This record gives sequence, C-alpha cells and structure tokens, in this order.
Amino acid sequence: MAKDSLQIAVAGVSGYAGMELARLLLHHPALRGRPPVFVGRDPDAVRLTAIHPQLADNNGSAELMVEPFSWELLKERGVDLLFLATPHEQSRGWVPEALAQGLRVVDLSGAWRLRGHEHRAIYGFHDADAALAEQVQARSVYGLPELHRDCIRKAKLVANPGCYATSIILALKPLLAAGWVDLDRGIICDSKSGVSGAGKAPTPGTHFMYAADNLSAYAVFGHRHMGEILEQLGIEESQIIFTPHLLPIPRGILSTTYVTFEDAKEVEEVDACFKEFYAASPMVRVFSPGKTGRGSAHLPQIQYSVRTNYCDIGFQLAKDGRRCVLVSCLDNLLKGAAGQAVENMNLMCGWDEAEGLL
Amino acid sequence: MAKDSLQIAVAGVSGYAGMELARLLLHHPALRGRPPVFVGRDPDAVRLTAIHPQLADNNGSAELMVEPFSWELLKERGVDLLFLATPHEQSRGWVPEALAQGLRVVDLSGAWRLRGHEHRAIYGFHDADAALAEQVQARSVYGLPELHRDCIRKAKLVANPGCYATSIILALKPLLAAGWVDLDRGIICDSKSGVSGAGKAPTPGTHFMYAADNLSAYAVFGHRHMGEILEQLGIEESQIIFTPHLLPIPRGILSTTYVTFEDAKEVEEVDACFKEFYAASPMVRVFSPGKTGRGSAHLPQIQYSVRTNYCDIGFQLAKDGRRCVLVSCLDNLLKGAAGQAVENMNLMCGWDEAEGLL
Amino acid sequence: MAKDSLQIAVAGVSGYAGMELARLLLHHPALRGRPPVFVGRDPDAVRLTAIHPQLADNNGSAELMVEPFSWELLKERGVDLLFLATPHEQSRGWVPEALAQGLRVVDLSGAWRLRGHEHRAIYGFHDADAALAEQVQARSVYGLPELHRDCIRKAKLVANPGCYATSIILALKPLLAAGWVDLDRGIICDSKSGVSGAGKAPTPGTHFMYAADNLSAYAVFGHRHMGEILEQLGIEESQIIFTPHLLPIPRGILSTTYVTFEDAKEVEEVDACFKEFYAASPMVRVFSPGKTGRGSAHLPQIQYSVRTNYCDIGFQLAKDGRRCVLVSCLDNLLKGAAGQAVENMNLMCGWDEAEGLL
Amino acid sequence: MAKDSLQIAVAGVSGYAGMELARLLLHHPALRGRPPVFVGRDPDAVRLTAIHPQLADNNGSAELMVEPFSWELLKERGVDLLFLATPHEQSRGWVPEALAQGLRVVDLSGAWRLRGHEHRAIYGFHDADAALAEQVQARSVYGLPELHRDCIRKAKLVANPGCYATSIILALKPLLAAGWVDLDRGIICDSKSGVSGAGKAPTPGTHFMYAADNLSAYAVFGHRHMGEILEQLGIEESQIIFTPHLLPIPRGILSTTYVTFEDAKEVEEVDACFKEFYAASPMVRVFSPGKTGRGSAHLPQIQYSVRTNYCDIGFQLAKDGRRCVLVSCLDNLLKGAAGQAVENMNLMCGWDEAEGLL
Repeated sequence: MAKDSLQIAVAGVSGYAGMELARLLLHHPALRGRPPVFVGRDPDAVRLTAIHPQLADNNGSAELMVEPFSWELLKERGVDLLFLATPHEQSRGWVPEALAQGLRVVDLSGAWRLRGHEHRAIYGFHDADAALAEQVQARSVYGLPELHRDCIRKAKLVANPGCYATSIILALKPLLAAGWVDLDRGIICDSKSGVSGAGKAPTPGTHFMYAADNLSAYAVFGHRHMGEILEQLGIEESQIIFTPHLLPIPRGILSTTYVTFEDAKEVEEVDACFKEFYAASPMVRVFSPGKTGRGSAHLPQIQYSVRTNYCDIGFQLAKDGRRCVLVSCLDNLLKGAAGQAVENMNLMCGWDEAEGLL
Repeated sequence: MAKDSLQIAVAGVSGYAGMELARLLLHHPALRGRPPVFVGRDPDAVRLTAIHPQLADNNGSAELMVEPFSWELLKERGVDLLFLATPHEQSRGWVPEALAQGLRVVDLSGAWRLRGHEHRAIYGFHDADAALAEQVQARSVYGLPELHRDCIRKAKLVANPGCYATSIILALKPLLAAGWVDLDRGIICDSKSGVSGAGKAPTPGTHFMYAADNLSAYAVFGHRHMGEILEQLGIEESQIIFTPHLLPIPRGILSTTYVTFEDAKEVEEVDACFKEFYAASPMVRVFSPGKTGRGSAHLPQIQYSVRTNYCDIGFQLAKDGRRCVLVSCLDNLLKGAAGQAVENMNLMCGWDEAEGLL
Repeated sequence: MAKDSLQIAVAGVSGYAGMELARLLLHHPALRGRPPVFVGRDPDAVRLTAIHPQLADNNGSAELMVEPFSWELLKERGVDLLFLATPHEQSRGWVPEALAQGLRVVDLSGAWRLRGHEHRAIYGFHDADAALAEQVQARSVYGLPELHRDCIRKAKLVANPGCYATSIILALKPLLAAGWVDLDRGIICDSKSGVSGAGKAPTPGTHFMYAADNLSAYAVFGHRHMGEILEQLGIEESQIIFTPHLLPIPRGILSTTYVTFEDAKEVEEVDACFKEFYAASPMVRVFSPGKTGRGSAHLPQIQYSVRTNYCDIGFQLAKDGRRCVLVSCLDNLLKGAAGQAVENMNLMCGWDEAEGLL
Repeated sequence: MAKDSLQIAVAGVSGYAGMELARLLLHHPALRGRPPVFVGRDPDAVRLTAIHPQLADNNGSAELMVEPFSWELLKERGVDLLFLATPHEQSRGWVPEALAQGLRVVDLSGAWRLRGHEHRAIYGFHDADAALAEQVQARSVYGLPELHRDCIRKAKLVANPGCYATSIILALKPLLAAGWVDLDRGIICDSKSGVSGAGKAPTPGTHFMYAADNLSAYAVFGHRHMGEILEQLGIEESQIIFTPHLLPIPRGILSTTYVTFEDAKEVEEVDACFKEFYAASPMVRVFSPGKTGRGSAHLPQIQYSVRTNYCDIGFQLAKDGRRCVLVSCLDNLLKGAAGQAVENMNLMCGWDEAEGLL
C-alpha cells in the first residue's frame, strides 16, 4: 500500500470516538491533502462540521461532508482502509462484507475482539452466517500494538481494544509475563472513567445532573470488557475482579490495580520490568517512583494523559515487597479508542507507530 | 446535663467542617435560642458571616461573632461542651486543659483517635506532658456511634473519626464481626474523596486547575487514617491496603472495598448481616441488592448521601459467593466530620442520636 | 384552614423541582406527621424513594408512595391544597377542574402566570374552554411574595414565578418603583443558570458532555420568561434585553443586570432603596457594598444562595453615579421554584412566610 | 531572519500560558529540531517535565531543561526572539534590556500594551528610567494580528493582548469601524472566564471549593483590561461597561456584548460586516445566523473554541434591527495568550499567520 495513494474511510463519525478519529486523520501527516471519506447512515449528506462544530477550521474542513454509506461509494472513492466507529451489532454485520470487498478494517467496537464464545455471549451477536463469522473472527487481530505489533502490521481486520481493557492489560501484562503475580491471591482492578465512555446518546446516566458532583460504581462483576482482559492476560475470571466507576469528568480513565507478587521484589526490579517490556513502545510512559517506591509524586494522574495518546503506568510497592498498587491512566477517546485506531493504521500502513499522535 | 442549660462552644469554625458544624448547631432543635459560643485564634472578634457568607440568614445569624479564644471566656459563658475543629497539633495541646477545666470535648481532629504508639507516629505529636497525654488518651472514646454508642454517652472526650476511616470501618465491621472474612486473602479499600477533605488552605493540590477534570491517587501505603482503621477493625497492616484518590467534586466519599469470605454466602445472608448489625443505627442505610445481588441499580452513590449525615452501604457478591465488593458512601463533612460530631453530642447529652441530622 | 387539618397533595414529584418540593414539605414544621399525598401519571403506585433515592431517610420516608392521580383520590384523602409541579400544558388543563373541586392550587409551571395574550403565545396553550380559562386566569395571583404578599394570602390559584424571572424582577423592581431608571437607555439582563433549570429529560443539551466545561447562550431575544418580566415590571419589550446562558453547574442562577439612572445617585441611596423595599421580606438578602460601592467583596455569588431559599441582591455603582450593575443570585430549584412555592403555601395558610425555609 | 537559524527563548514557562506556549513551540513545524531555550528564575536548572508532567512525550521532551535566566545565556545560545510569559512588573523591567541586546520580544504580560498614562496607572509600574520606558512604549505594537498585522511583522516589541480584551475587541471592532454603533446608548460587555485566567498561584479564589459549582462577578468597573479595550476601540470609559465573571471551568472565555445600532440593519448586513472585516484573518471564525438571525443554533459556545486558537464570533439581532447581542468565545490560554503569541511570532518571522496553530 503506497503512502501516496492510500484512501481512508470512516463510518460512524457522529460519536465521540468518531469525532476524535476525524480530528486525528484530518491532521495526520501521511494523509495530508487526502481527507477521509466520511460515511454515515443518514440518507442525506450532511456537513461534518454541522455534527461537530469543534472540527471547523479555516483550513477547508468546513467543506467536508458525511455521505450516505454504500459499498459502491467506497469502491468509487478507491477506499483501501475502513475505520468502523459504529455500534457492535453494526460492525458485526458489516465486517465480513468489507473484507470480501478487499478492504482492510479497523473496527473500534467490541464486535471482533473475543475468541471465546463464553466471552462473546454478553454482546448477544446474531450472525447471519455463523461459519463465516467464525472465519472472520479467526483472522481478527486484537489491536493492542504493545502486545501484537507484528500481527497488526499484516492484519486485514484489527479489533481495536476497549478503553478500560487497554488501561488494565497494559498495567498487568509485564508483571504476568514475568511470572511474578500470585494469581491465587487475586487481582483487583478498580477503574474510573469519564462520561464520554458512556457514549453520546442522552440517557438518564449521562444527564449532567446524574454525573456531575457524583461517583458511582456500575456493572460490578458484569462489564463486557472482562472478556478481552481475560483473553489477553491469559487468566481466569476467578482470578480477577474489575469494577468500573463513572467519574464526573468528560474524559480520561484511571485504573488502580492491586496485585501480590509470589516473591518480594525491589522497587528497581518492578520499574525495570515495565521499562524493558515497553522499551519499543512509543505510546506507553512508565513513571519511575523515587528511591523508595513510596509517596505519590510520581504516579500517573488523569490530567497528564488526557488529550494525548499515551498510556501512563506507575506503581507503589508495599514495604513487604509483595503487595503492589499499579496506577494506569489514558484518554478513553484516544489510547482507549481513536488514537489507538490510528496507531493500528500506522502499523498496517508501514508508518511510524506514533505518526500523527505526538 | 439539662437540655435547657447546655452551652456549646466551637473552636476552629473557619474551615469547611467548622462551617458545617456551625450550620448544624444553629439549626439544632435542642439548642434553639442558645447559639454556640464561637472562638478562634484571631485576636479580634469577627462576624461569623464575614468568614462564611453562606451562613447568613435573616434570622439573627448575621449578628454572631467569632471571639478570641480564652479559657476565661468559655468559663464566663458557662460552656459545658467544646467542639474542636482545630488542627491536630492544636487539639493535642488544648484537650488536657479543657478536661481539667471540666469541659466535655468532641475533637474533630486526629489528635486523640489512636491507642497504638506506632499508629500515632505519623502525626508526630510533641506532648508537653507525656504522662498526662497518655492518661487523656486512655479516657478518649473513638466517636463512631455504631460501634461505641454506650461509651460515647458517658465520655468526657470523644475523638471524632476520620472521614475515610468512617466509610471503611462501617463497611467492614459487620463482616469482620461475623468472622466471615478470609484475612489471608487481604482486604482492598479503594477510596475516593471530594476536595473539601483536603482542607481550606489554598495549595497546589486544591487549586481548581489541579483538581478539576482530574483523578489522582495519593498517600498510597501511607495515609494517616490507616491507624484508626486497623485499631477499630482489629486487623494488621499486612491484611489491608487503603488507597485514597482525589475526586473533582466538592464533597463526598465513595469507598469500594474488596473482601473474600472464608465460606460461600448467599446474597440474603450478607444483606441480613448488615441489616442486623445496623438495626439500631439511625445514620446507616443498608442498600439491599435485588434477588441476585448482581447489577448495580441498588448500590450507593455519592449524590445519594452528600449533604446528609448518612453512611450508605451496599454490596455485590460474585457468583462464587465468596468474593464480595462493598460500596460505602458518605459526606466527608457530615458523617465524615461535623455531622458525626453532632451525633456524638446528641449521645453525650442524652438526646436522640439523629436529632438535628435528618 | 386550621393548621392541624391541612392536607397537601403534590402532582409531578418526579422532576427536580418536585424532588425539592417533596423534601421541603416532608421537613416542614407545620406539616409534621401529615405527609403530602404524592400523585403521578404512572398507573401503578411507586415508592417515592425509588424515584428519588436521595429522599430516603430512616424516618419513615421509605414507605411513602406516589399514587396514580385521580380527583377522587384527592377528595378521599381530604386534600386542601394542591401543588402542581407538572408541565405547562398539563397545569393549564388541570387547574380549572382543581378550582372547581374547591382545591387551592400552587402551580409551578408557566401556565397561569401571564395576563397578556401576546406573552402567552409562546406557550401555545390550547384551552378546551377559552372563556373559563380567561376566568381562571383573572383569579390567578403571580406568586412573588415580595410583590404580592397580600393577594397571595387570599388566593385560590397562585402561579409560581419562573426562576430567571424571579432573579430579574427582584433585582429591578425597587429601582423601577423608585422611578430612577432611564428606560430609554435600555436594561440588559445577562443571566446564567445551572443545568437543573433545563429539566430532567435526557436531551443533547443536558448531556454531561455538552454542559460540562462549557458555557452557551440560548433563546436570545426569545425566552419565555420575558412575558412575566415585562408584566411584573410594567415595561416594554423594547426597553429590556434578557439573555440566558447555560452554566456547567447543577443549580443556581446569577443575573447581571445593567441599568442607567436618570439622575446620579450615591451608593448609600441605592443601598437604602433596596433595604427599604425588602424590609419586610425575609427571603431577600441585600448585600451592602463598602463605602465606595466599588470592588466586589460584597457581591452575591451563586454558592452563597444555592441550597437556600434566599434571593441575594447586590450592586456596584459607576463613578458617574448613573450606571449601575446589579448582581442577583438564587437557587433555581428553591427561590426559583419549590422554595418559593412553599413560601406561597405559608402565606396561603397564614403561617410565617419563611416557615420551613431557613 | 532565516527560518533555519531562528532561535527562540521563553522566560516564565512555569505558568499556564507558559505551558501552552512550550507545547505550541515544541510542535511548531518551523522550529522542528530546534527547541526553545527555556529560562526561569530558579537558580538551578530543572527539567521542563518536572514542572509540567503533561509535556512529557517519548520524543525527547523529557530531556529539556529550564535554565537559570541570564542575558549571557541568551547570547550564548544565539537567541533571536524572546517570549516573556512573566509577571507585568518583571516584563516592564526586562524589555528595555532585551531590546538593547538586539532581541525581538513578544511579551504576554500587560506591561507594554497601553499608550495612555491614565490606563497604565492600574498596574502601578515603577520604571527605573522613565524616559527610556516611554521610548520603548512608543515602539511597542499591540499584538492583535487582526488589527495590526503589518506593524507586527516589523515590530521589535509586541505586547500580546489580554484574554478578555481580545474577545471583546474582536467582537466590537468591525461594527465600530463601520460607524454603526450608537455610543450614546452605551456598550455592555458581560464576560465569563475559566479559572486558568486567574493564574497558577494557589489563592482563596482559585481553590476548587471556591470556584467549583459557583459563578461570581469581580472587578466590576475596575478590571485592568479596560485600558486596552478603550485604546484599541477608540472609545471612552463612559461608553462601555465591562464585567468579568469567574466560571467553574478550567479554560475558555465567552463574552456577551450588547450594542445598539444608530440605524436598523438586516441580519445579512451584520453578517457581511464581520465576514468582510475578517476575510484575511485565519484565526477568526464568524458564525452566520440562520435566515432570521434569531434562535441560538449558530452561536459560538466555549467548547467549540477551547483548545483551539480561534476567536469565534456570532450575533443575534432584535426584530427592531438596532439592538444586537454579540457572542464571542476563545481559549484564554491560546487566542487569549500563548496561541496569539505564536501568531505574532509567525508574523514577525514572515511565516504563515496560522502556522502551527491549526
């Protein structure tokens, strides 16, 4: 796929992740002069800036249209790579056809992230052609560059990870890969997310009066990101608890994760474990603690990572060297959605992983 | 102490807990017509409403003064009971003298909450008379009515609990008292508090630009409420982790606490355990889950308890019946400070525990 | 109407104003032991605390039901006074029947506030019986106690004012009544309101992502509170501009109002004008400026009045003594809705105007 | 000044405007590979990312230091252009020396914006050499590109405008330039700003508990931006009132400005007036109203312009065609400070005005 001929399309630009995706693609150095084809389900073409006035600039964006979706249109425009920022069910239906049309796909929904039937159950997919769906599923690559960089490069279908899942998997994977974690003691992931994670539909739970000045836990023992967390970490449901909470802020996730090591470690060992694991990962920032690994001056916090594509990871180690508190932060719309999707595009196109994201 | 002759005094009314305390006492049915004596360290008397314009009403409050503190003044005014909403060190210094003067004291600081020397170390107290301090300490009652109601009634000195500690102790005590908790698996308390908990002093951490649109963990493995949690629950530091976070809201605490039971329990058993333990406690609300104990419709959230004196407690039980997520909420300035102080006064004076608090 | 026999009913308790009304009535000293009859349009009775968990207390409120509305039910329960916290159109339809049934009514909607046909047009009322509607309208009293205290006492129907209108009318009336304002120069009312003013329905404009971290002007030259402002102040549309803005806060209104005096005044004169006008009004607090009337230390701000029933009024006078900036604040759900409704009830029942509101 | 040799320095990077300036300059296409020299008053060099963790990226920024300021250091590094994001008094003292050293300067403070002595009084400058200060003042160009583009290109000293002033001047200038405004009727500017405008110092007024859930007017008839507004618009103090308010949001300004036209205008005429005036201005976006010029769908709001360098301007016209409400929005840290400073740099260096700002 030569850089100068690549044509991108985006379906589902009306949501928050779609808006961020549009913004990133319109400013992406490798796509200069070749804006994405935006398509939606509205039967009439509508200006992109009528949907997202924030995207208006005096640089041409005011002329961009969101056009009625059709496979013909994508073919006509010579689209090579399609981003789907569409609901799960829609992505589940469209992807087989997109692949059949020779398109490469980055799907931001949860439709193609899960191998295990038991994990997929929560989505309640109804596949028109179950056998085809299994074939497609088998070709899908879980789009977490830090874990699957090489497969993503060659993938036809990349299933972009969930926002909570990204923050948790990136915090835990280095320690699990090192074989340090005492899984019998159980892992606790206490996560907190801004309201944009709940989507753009006006609901009682996204009403300002509900979310503001509040904090609430939800989907305890039942959030659908659990499946990807288990599959990517290679652990069992009995070994981890994941509790999401709704924060009164527009965007950002902070996950506080509690693990116990089988053997006592030094702060420097833990730090080195993260640093080595992410040495080649431009979008992870490891926060090294001070000499003692105690105190909180060097922990990530939401405002450090929000509006960036970084996942920030820090930790504090108990004096016993075994109990460890991990803090990981990211912007749920960027590293947790649109930014990571662009990262995947970069890999698929042979560009620098962080192109257009720093 | 006859209802019609009780005279209250409040020292340290300028902070947020002091403001709420003043508000509650000025509206307390048993104190009608006999406003507290307000004293402070300012050498000049100053109007209460100059410090807290919010307290102004067209009902006489505009005339109330905060007068320069002296023991003579308290004696002159016939003060029986003194609230200290003062910094730890100041409470540590004043209480022995207050008791010597025959005053009963409710101290909102951390000065007299802790029996164990090792837990007190974090406060760095320098007692002028160490032997006297130990005597005073020995007479101090930890002012959590749900645990120490009878002792509080007769106490000369009540050490009002910390805000985080109240939310955690009330969530855990019934389960620990029942002997259900597997302490080898460890307890995790992931707590989140509004900014008023950080006090009124303008600091980098209370600046709007730091706190707003943010979430940060702090004092990991090192918060000074840990001592009271351990002492009141009768557990060891190695059995519990407590991680506080700063929420971008003015007030309210939500603690998410993770325990493992030694034996599997039914949802109804857990519910009954809480209901029975708090049957006689007017300021605790137990949220019963639905039939399955799953879903989050019946969990406490911050906006249900903020600006009330309630501590709300709910839970979700894993399918295995052993792993349990507790959610407890309260207003850090009310049940976590001034409201609980009034509750203690009510008990000390033989009034209804909830008088002036519903 | 004897105090000990009064029975209140509330229709439309599910909204924000309804919730505050329920809270106030349940704690009202004159209604102790006789909770309101709550009625709604749901065909099944539902617990009040299922709609508003915030209202739950361990004092009996958990048993209160919202019952299906019918005139028979109200009669059966011996209802004397009915609060309508219902949509405009519904209040417009119900009030004639309520009066026919001998009920006294406080209507929180805009249905009966306006005398002038031209001002009513914006509501688009379709009266089943236009002649009857006119008769009812003629009996309606605009429920602003500071202006119509005596009429309210005897009223059968009180039309509770709009929230913006209350903040503006109370700021301007004393100056207009004094004949000081140069109406040819025009009055500007720049008002800002919290999100609860937009109602409980989840809409794009009440989504957290829209309202948070934002400010927007709306309904410029077209807000429906304009009619009541004009009628109550006795001025023309050409003499005043009213611009509402949506603030990223749950509750509270601040109106900044600009007037020019025909003749130069001293700060003390302006202060005295307000103080005298509101001398008998317990729910208005006049903020006196310092000696110069310049500086902003003594201006109202939203957090002073929110969660109170006060309307706070302050001002700054230009050096020329003619240009005056008025700042008025109130809680849109209390003095701007439910609190003022209770104030009206107090007057209708011969109780103290501020009973249950301090 | 050849593009490939330009060396920038920034003094005062520790504040909010300084942080945004650093971010913009580090990503500026024309400065690639040549990061600014950052200087401060700390006697020791300190990492930029220790002051602003948000600026850390895996792209080299972590190595950047803020070095102790000295003229020698600037000379040594070959600095051509110096940004001062320093307090007023410091800028007042440093600029004469900087010019003497042959540096070009963009000063973000209020030190050099004002020609009139009477307007400068509010800053209370104490010039060491008053005659020199007057000479420097005479060479200073007010850095509003939309008004002074050509002078800025050649300027040695650019005085970057105040944030409020930018929002007000840009809204009013086209109408005043057209001679349409009836100045006898007076102009009202009701402005609202996020908390970052109050600076980074922790003060009672920037405490989260003061600013959150609040709105307050301040500096009524006494804000120091008034001088620049008067000078740039060529009007008298008696012809305009400017009232700033503190919004509970991190950043963004919305100014609602009220003018009366001498003669009735059509909506299209007003729209054309703005469009023509700003035809060559890439950083102003004019929001055209719909056919009637009524309704608010097409008004700017804070979230459209925040985190951009645009000033958005819209309006609503009364039916009489004479009374006009202007709404202008910008990000106080970008178009109101650091972004406009970069715009000025672009002009001074002969680059595209919007380079690095879209």
